[in-house]
Amino acid sequence: MIYITRRERFNAAHRLFRPDYSDDQNMEIFGKCSNPNWHGHNYTLFVTLKGEVKPETGFLANLKDLSTIIRREITDKLDHKNMNLEVDFMMGKLASTENLAISIWEVLNEPVKQLGASLHCIKIEETENNYVEYYGQ
Amino acid sequence: MIYITRRERFNAAHRLFRPDYSDDQNMEIFGKCSNPNWHGHNYTLFVTLKGEVKPETGFLANLKDLSTIIRREITDKLDHKNMNLEVDFMMGKLASTENLAISIWEVLNEPVKQLGASLHCIKIEETENNYVEYYGQ
Amino acid sequence: MIYITRRERFNAAHRLFRPDYSDDQNMEIFGKCSNPNWHGHNYTLFVTLKGEVKPETGFLANLKDLSTIIRREITDKLDHKNMNLEVDFMMGKLASTENLAISIWEVLNEPVKQLGASLHCIKIEETENNYVEYYGQ
Amino acid sequence: MIYITRRERFNAAHRLFRPDYSDDQNMEIFGKCSNPNWHGHNYTLFVTLKGEVKPETGFLANLKDLSTIIRREITDKLDHKNMNLEVDFMMGKLASTENLAISIWEVLNEPVKQLGASLHCIKIEETENNYVEYYGQ
Amino acid sequence: MIYITRRERFNAAHRLFRPDYSDDQNMEIFGKCSNPNWHGHNYTLFVTLKGEVKPETGFLANLKDLSTIIRREITDKLDHKNMNLEVDFMMGKLASTENLAISIWEVLNEPVKQLGASLHCIKIEETENNYVEYYGQ
Amino acid sequence: MIYITRRERFNAAHRLFRPDYSDDQNMEIFGKCSNPNWHGHNYTLFVTLKGEVKPETGFLANLKDLSTIIRREITDKLDHKNMNLEVDFMMGKLASTENLAISIWEVLNEPVKQLGASLHCIKIEETENNYVEYYGQ
Repeated sequence: MIYITRRERFNAAHRLFRPDYSDDQNMEIFGKCSNPNWHGHNYTLFVTLKGEVKPETGFLANLKDLSTIIRREITDKLDHKNMNLEVDFMMGKLASTENLAISIWEVLNEPVKQLGASLHCIKIEETENNYVEYYGQ
Repeated sequence: MIYITRRERFNAAHRLFRPDYSDDQNMEIFGKCSNPNWHGHNYTLFVTLKGEVKPETGFLANLKDLSTIIRREITDKLDHKNMNLEVDFMMGKLASTENLAISIWEVLNEPVKQLGASLHCIKIEETENNYVEYYGQ
Repeated sequence: MIYITRRERFNAAHRLFRPDYSDDQNMEIFGKCSNPNWHGHNYTLFVTLKGEVKPETGFLANLKDLSTIIRREITDKLDHKNMNLEVDFMMGKLASTENLAISIWEVLNEPVKQLGASLHCIKIEETENNYVEYYGQ
Repeated sequence: MIYITRRERFNAAHRLFRPDYSDDQNMEIFGKCSNPNWHGHNYTLFVTLKGEVKPETGFLANLKDLSTIIRREITDKLDHKNMNLEVDFMMGKLASTENLAISIWEVLNEPVKQLGASLHCIKIEETENNYVEYYGQ
Repeated sequence: MIYITRRERFNAAHRLFRPDYSDDQNMEIFGKCSNPNWHGHNYTLFVTLKGEVKPETGFLANLKDLSTIIRREITDKLDHKNMNLEVDFMMGKLASTENLAISIWEVLNEPVKQLGASLHCIKIEETENNYVEYYGQ
Repeated sequence: MIYITRRERFNAAHRLFRPDYSDDQNMEIFGKCSNPNWHGHNYTLFVTLKGEVKPETGFLANLKDLSTIIRREITDKLDHKNMNLEVDFMMGKLASTENLAISIWEVLNEPVKQLGASLHCIKIEETENNYVEYYGQ
């Protein structure tokens, strides 16, 4: 069993808030992250696959193919976008890094199987001081 | 003559566009950076001062005081904000990294003099692949 | 189950030595790390919590609250301090990164529970070439 | 149980290819990584040990001793070398990062035991966007 | 006058040697960098332009266009290549980082003018411990 | 004219204080940096040389030779040491990063000339948020 990780990046706007709360209530819970005029981040995404090395290539999976899947399914939809308004797999969800990691897992879990590997971990760095990891359960 | 640099960070939303252009024209010139729903970045700001070391402290300037000035004048206004809509010193300007660097210079140039030093450079990293430097002329 | 990590930093002096050994014996075992005049590091601390995402916030835990706990319990006591002489939870212990990680676990394990999460890992980077991880058992 | 990690670096040339394939076939499978004239990388190696802290030193293992073993067994053989032509433990293998991680595990697994610790993980970063981890099974 | 910098990366093999010297003589002067079987690096290239901000865009130059020029003229030729054998603008030159920086300057100096800016600096990082800067004179 | 830079690192303890001041006065001016029990840092030193590329080597200067000089003259004296008590070229000086950079310039300025190059800049990073540069005048 070996683990390979591909790093991809995207820049997005978001806002943490509940639509059933007033701006004041959202500010109390989410602080400046609830700014109604949005803010944004350079997000760094790490996708880790696990499985066995294929003897004919020496690869667990071709990282170029993994990158293609991540860009098509995830970062092309998030990059230079508003996470709350424009990203299909985040619609109706609180735009926290936790929910983003879980949602990306759900989107990628099936497509990466065509590479002959299993999804192991989604890690997202929101700032240099914060990151979230999700292992699918 | 010695140079000291303080790094500060802020996360902001922005959009590159001209209000006198249509969305299509803005897309043609600014690409995905003109997304009407905004996007955002983790900006890293480097403020460099120059001057002479004070014999009584061994400092050019106290970096804690410099940090206080940068936060009060710049990053408190930009952090978790929308650069186009909420930041007084960016109002009516194209929200490019170039204009942001020039504007930060203009805001900081006078206040840092009280530290007994001169402003030498404003450097802003927008992503790991791009940065801008301005030396005041 | 999701994992969130907060990074905090502190700068401290320390010395690796056993008071029951001579300086020569300490030098033999601990090398230059046993310098009787101390040396120091920029330590980077990563605190990882695990638990379930709260549906009402989208958070496992509020990272600002986690940061407040880490600073009050750990980094305010270590930053710009001498780890051997001034830090209550390191008193009488060999000031190795291993012991520091275990001690920080012991201090933080209870307080973080008030965030509705469990402590998962304490990671400390002492230099760019060395780090220690402790998972509580 | 505690985990310590030592980072070491080496710069090497390599080529991904199968000698039983034509250059065209290799290009189809391995892309530009199969360039017959070689290419190269700054590899970063992370070696993680696990075990119990020794009460008499506060260490799991002396990291200087671990560094000495890694350099003697691994990086002195790889640094400024051609991984396909000159490195005994890579001879006859596809020079993928996966195979490199597994091979380094096999070389280091016994020698690190003399430090009173067990090998836990070999991690290799090939570029800032790709890394591989192997846990020995 | 403002300065903008674009970072690009390439991975290449090279060897430091003089063809009029024996392997022993090359080893004496260039050390392990003269390995006849090649070695390689992850090179990081920083291209800095200078000029005036265009009022109609807020840009000195469009960084996407700068990236296109750098890739077409430089990194597409160097990435996953052997610098001594396959790169037209390095032919017949000692493959040092100094000569690489000067050669890249010579290649890029004219093409970047079409962006309405002047080339200011070529910086190349060969490892985390070494870099070279060239300002064109 | 080309510029080459070598990065070296050292870990040291220090204290910012004036012996003619009381602890309270020192605390007022230097804050927690004046802790009488010391604190410390991982310092990163960048030494930049300038000069002409030698046609016979393609080098401005051999970076291995530069590293040897920096280690012998500077980092062997500072690493795992107390900057106030044990470093000859810092004796009797306020142990600020500014004074450290100036002192390192004074020590290195002559020795590097034997490499056929001139000292251009001493840069010292004390933390990820602070650095100092000195150009010799």
